[in-house]
Amino acid sequence: MLPAPALLDELDALLLELNRAAADVILPLFRNAAQLSMEDKGTIGAFDPVTAADRGAEAAIRKLVSARYPSHGVLGEEYGADRVDAEWVWVIDPVDGTRAFVAGLPVWTTLIGLRFQGRPVLGSIGQPVLGEVFIGDARGSRCVDTRGARPLRVRPCAALSHAVLATTDPFKLLDVRELAVWQRMQEGARFARYGCDAYAYAMLAAGFVDLVAESGLKPWDIDAAVPVIEGAGGVVVDWSGAPIGTSGGQMLIAGDRRLLGEVLPLTRTVARRP
Amino acid sequence: MLPAPALLDELDALLLELNRAAADVILPLFRNAAQLSMEDKGTIGAFDPVTAADRGAEAAIRKLVSARYPSHGVLGEEYGADRVDAEWVWVIDPVDGTRAFVAGLPVWTTLIGLRFQGRPVLGSIGQPVLGEVFIGDARGSRCVDTRGARPLRVRPCAALSHAVLATTDPFKLLDVRELAVWQRMQEGARFARYGCDAYAYAMLAAGFVDLVAESGLKPWDIDAAVPVIEGAGGVVVDWSGAPIGTSGGQMLIAGDRRLLGEVLPLTRTVARRP
Repeated sequence: MLPAPALLDELDALLLELNRAAADVILPLFRNAAQLSMEDKGTIGAFDPVTAADRGAEAAIRKLVSARYPSHGVLGEEYGADRVDAEWVWVIDPVDGTRAFVAGLPVWTTLIGLRFQGRPVLGSIGQPVLGEVFIGDARGSRCVDTRGARPLRVRPCAALSHAVLATTDPFKLLDVRELAVWQRMQEGARFARYGCDAYAYAMLAAGFVDLVAESGLKPWDIDAAVPVIEGAGGVVVDWSGAPIGTSGGQMLIAGDRRLLGEVLPLTRTVARRP
Repeated sequence: MLPAPALLDELDALLLELNRAAADVILPLFRNAAQLSMEDKGTIGAFDPVTAADRGAEAAIRKLVSARYPSHGVLGEEYGADRVDAEWVWVIDPVDGTRAFVAGLPVWTTLIGLRFQGRPVLGSIGQPVLGEVFIGDARGSRCVDTRGARPLRVRPCAALSHAVLATTDPFKLLDVRELAVWQRMQEGARFARYGCDAYAYAMLAAGFVDLVAESGLKPWDIDAAVPVIEGAGGVVVDWSGAPIGTSGGQMLIAGDRRLLGEVLPLTRTVARRP
């Protein structure tokens, strides 16, 4: 049973409020001079802006959620699991893409998702520098920015040779066999982009990226994005082609399901069961 | 002989005007729905938003330059070379990072540089979605955005193991031997970012990226960035460690010169003379 429309409206509004609260914490720390002084020492000093942003934003989100819905569970990257056997569980990654954040690149995101009876039903991918929140639920997906809201829709793409691909870091996040599969995929594609983390899912939902391949994901790296991707017409499976569970791992995200026919024969050779 | 401060002020003001004119042409074409319909067909149709953005912006820049300084030369990616033996020559890439543009990622830039007697003396890296223009001249570098102007300064980074690296596309833009060198560099670094084109130079000038390695650059891919990088304290050399000429090629851009001591022994093994 899915949540009623009135409840989805209420949850959507809360999602925007949570994104604003996270942005208020994170933005002053992005490209912060304190980061520079940390780098001067060449070591992680007493003050790490990324960790401060992550912790501060997750705390702000948890506070608002528990005030509004004290019975809901929360699973976050920074503060762990609270009541994750509840019917409703929020899954949070305040700063997804910490390397982009550290490098000053505005493609890190705030991920806030909500599971109902174990399944992601509502989620957002927010990019505060750009003032964008990509929201998805059972009724569809949309991008909310300073100009208002507009619907998100994946684009048709029948063949890998026409596809724009993305993965976050082929050298650091894929193992040797996964990297070989990635190499074959990107050689056959139109071109590939790297280092976008969850922002690549947003661009896929918006119809500019066709396929994202990732490995070693944590639940909070993907959960919030699932409703955004599916609400825009996209599909999320593991590297064997099976529906994803709630524990992360290897993921293929396609805007057009036909692409999976071309890439699954490659990815299945290195698919791991969770 | 370098241009006098009063002339630099005048040229700086023109640079901002040129960036605004380019942004007015390009922004309506970024994430444009017409691009989607082009993708639907899986082929480059009659209307290609990237080409339209490139051509329209370069035409707008050329028009303003020739109205203000009819004797100046112009070298651009789209419309070729005009009077490039003039004392002053503008070097333009209206949309650097067309793949980022096509993928909907706001890390493409508008590059506008000015050579005086064959040497880059003034330049800008503009990112219109973010409303940022990174400007450099002999007096230093600064970032101009909606909040005003602030100085740009590279950060100290004495060792590759602490460095944040960037290159645009290791698989498509580096040859096999260059890729092997890149692999060794990134394995020894803190982490690497990909797909940023000239935006990586801006982040280096701002103190968030330490080393950028590129190959196969055209003059308009790098010329405008040289004053921004050097004005912020950074250094640009070719892969042999020599000062760069005016014809592009293999480039190493370092925020801290000490990094070159570690990477030049690697890059020299595959350095090509222009």
